[in-house]
Amino acid sequence: MDENAIRLSHGSGQGLQELLHELVLPALIPGQMGILEDAALLTVQGGTLAFTSDSFVVWPLEFRGGDIGKLSACGTINDLAMMGAQPKYLSVSLILEEGLDKQLLIRILSSLRTVCEETGVIIACGDTKVVDRGKADGMFISTSGIGMVPAGRVLSAANAREGDAVLVSGPIGLHGITILSQRKGLRFASEAISDCAPLNTLAETLLTCVPETRLLRDATRGGCAAILHEIAESSNVCVLLDEAKIPVPDVVKGACAFLGLDPLHIANEGRFVAVVPAHEAAIAVSACQSHPIGNGAAIIGTVTQKGRFPLLLKTAIGGTRPVEMPAGELLPRIC
Amino acid sequence: MDENAIRLSHGSGQGLQELLHELVLPALIPGQMGILEDAALLTVQGGTLAFTSDSFVVWPLEFRGGDIGKLSACGTINDLAMMGAQPKYLSVSLILEEGLDKQLLIRILSSLRTVCEETGVIIACGDTKVVDRGKADGMFISTSGIGMVPAGRVLSAANAREGDAVLVSGPIGLHGITILSQRKGLRFASEAISDCAPLNTLAETLLTCVPETRLLRDATRGGCAAILHEIAESSNVCVLLDEAKIPVPDVVKGACAFLGLDPLHIANEGRFVAVVPAHEAAIAVSACQSHPIGNGAAIIGTVTQKGRFPLLLKTAIGGTRPVEMPAGELLPRIC
Repeated sequence: MDENAIRLSHGSGQGLQELLHELVLPALIPGQMGILEDAALLTVQGGTLAFTSDSFVVWPLEFRGGDIGKLSACGTINDLAMMGAQPKYLSVSLILEEGLDKQLLIRILSSLRTVCEETGVIIACGDTKVVDRGKADGMFISTSGIGMVPAGRVLSAANAREGDAVLVSGPIGLHGITILSQRKGLRFASEAISDCAPLNTLAETLLTCVPETRLLRDATRGGCAAILHEIAESSNVCVLLDEAKIPVPDVVKGACAFLGLDPLHIANEGRFVAVVPAHEAAIAVSACQSHPIGNGAAIIGTVTQKGRFPLLLKTAIGGTRPVEMPAGELLPRIC
Repeated sequence: MDENAIRLSHGSGQGLQELLHELVLPALIPGQMGILEDAALLTVQGGTLAFTSDSFVVWPLEFRGGDIGKLSACGTINDLAMMGAQPKYLSVSLILEEGLDKQLLIRILSSLRTVCEETGVIIACGDTKVVDRGKADGMFISTSGIGMVPAGRVLSAANAREGDAVLVSGPIGLHGITILSQRKGLRFASEAISDCAPLNTLAETLLTCVPETRLLRDATRGGCAAILHEIAESSNVCVLLDEAKIPVPDVVKGACAFLGLDPLHIANEGRFVAVVPAHEAAIAVSACQSHPIGNGAAIIGTVTQKGRFPLLLKTAIGGTRPVEMPAGELLPRIC
């Protein structure tokens, strides 16, 4: 493997962290050693504005439960919502490969539009580029979003405190297993349907009921394990999960057992992890469960004192084991 | 040619207009029949914010006078500046192909950063994706930008009025001819150097000296002809250019003559067209010429009453001929 070349494993987990911290950030923003949040917070005209950007390269372009259009809208809306922002405006930049089917493009754009209509987000601007056949893979979409953060609301991956409760907004692993099963033709996982969904109204419901919520993160690339590692590092704490309480759908459980994967490493596109004060845990779960996208919410662990392993799992059979940051690329192009 | 597939000619000029108006906009923003400006203007906290987004797919990644990193910063900064906005924040989303040379990536990101440092623009957020070998072409960059528009400043492609003067900020065609000569190995154009540059301080200089400036547009894909067609249509006027006054560098003149191209169709990445009231024309030219990037500025034509042809050229030999909107793709992936 050429050490001087970008590898697929740079696309997620530990590999992505290395690429970002050793190459991209030093070249782009030298001196910036801050925490990487889902969106940047900017002070504009005395208000707090959240600004975020993502590129989407998922393959296949259409999958059970969504497509690259729905994913592009949800991904950016969710990054804004995770900072407590109310998403307002979206930009949409398309890179189209020569030969792309126009009807497929229409379906994908309509799907993107539908999410925006449902969430009240305005598509404000965009761009369209066409590249020659063989120089892209059907299409890529980049979206960026602007949202407004209500005064006084401060969420950050650095805010978790010892004793806090860790909540997940619903069953985990469905997006990743869906993409995996469609890409690899795995029949035993063919009933998996992506969880891809906009999380802004669910986040707003939780933040209204529990304004003391410390942080929200959506568990995309690298799954719950990756973001819990980031939270542990940013907040200088550890996280102890209770395996018995983690909602894992049977199809995800089965696929992971068969393939030797950890459901905590599997990507989601419509699930967040929230950290809330322990005494608000029950209210937080009820608030999420009152919302259709959060009806499978559960408390899955607690924030503990910093120790040797950032993320520990109390297993169903009573032991405790560290959960690693996913090392490289379980499956490229999940989003 | 399959009528149901995206073609390379959809990437610029008339083909791009068709793709946007017949497919992308109806699918994405049905009912929206407005004018396509370089950036969207949003009212946030009582102020006017400009928001824009672009994807960059230029090939080769490095060219004389710039690279995809410099281009990505300039392109988005310029789109903001064309709306009269002062660029403040940039997002940077990378799509990297497996196998991309890390040193090349570092050079490109450093080049992007340098433009931001020079223009005082803050890189606020970003994203990095990696796709498998053969599924992208080295790298693509999507940038989006946020700027603030000073109160009372209103620029729009719809604002040109009969009698106004048409200004170009410098010699035209250098970016397009540079890319063309590097891609096709044309030795006779090997001294061409891209005009790629940030236009925000030049725009600000002009707008300060001539606050009555009607509009600014940067003459990228489709060259000056494409944007003058758009201005004519949006403002319901025509434009009459004077060939003798259009600054065309010898290398561009020579390459265009040899290849049968029109310099007005060639892309620029550091030139704008401004429309100003006739009585301010001389001040506008002086203002631009006082700035290093605008020292080749010139008045090249006038806005006339709407007629049969949106864009007419008084040729150097005394005749008058219509200048067409560039039909398709002179050269794909110019930006």
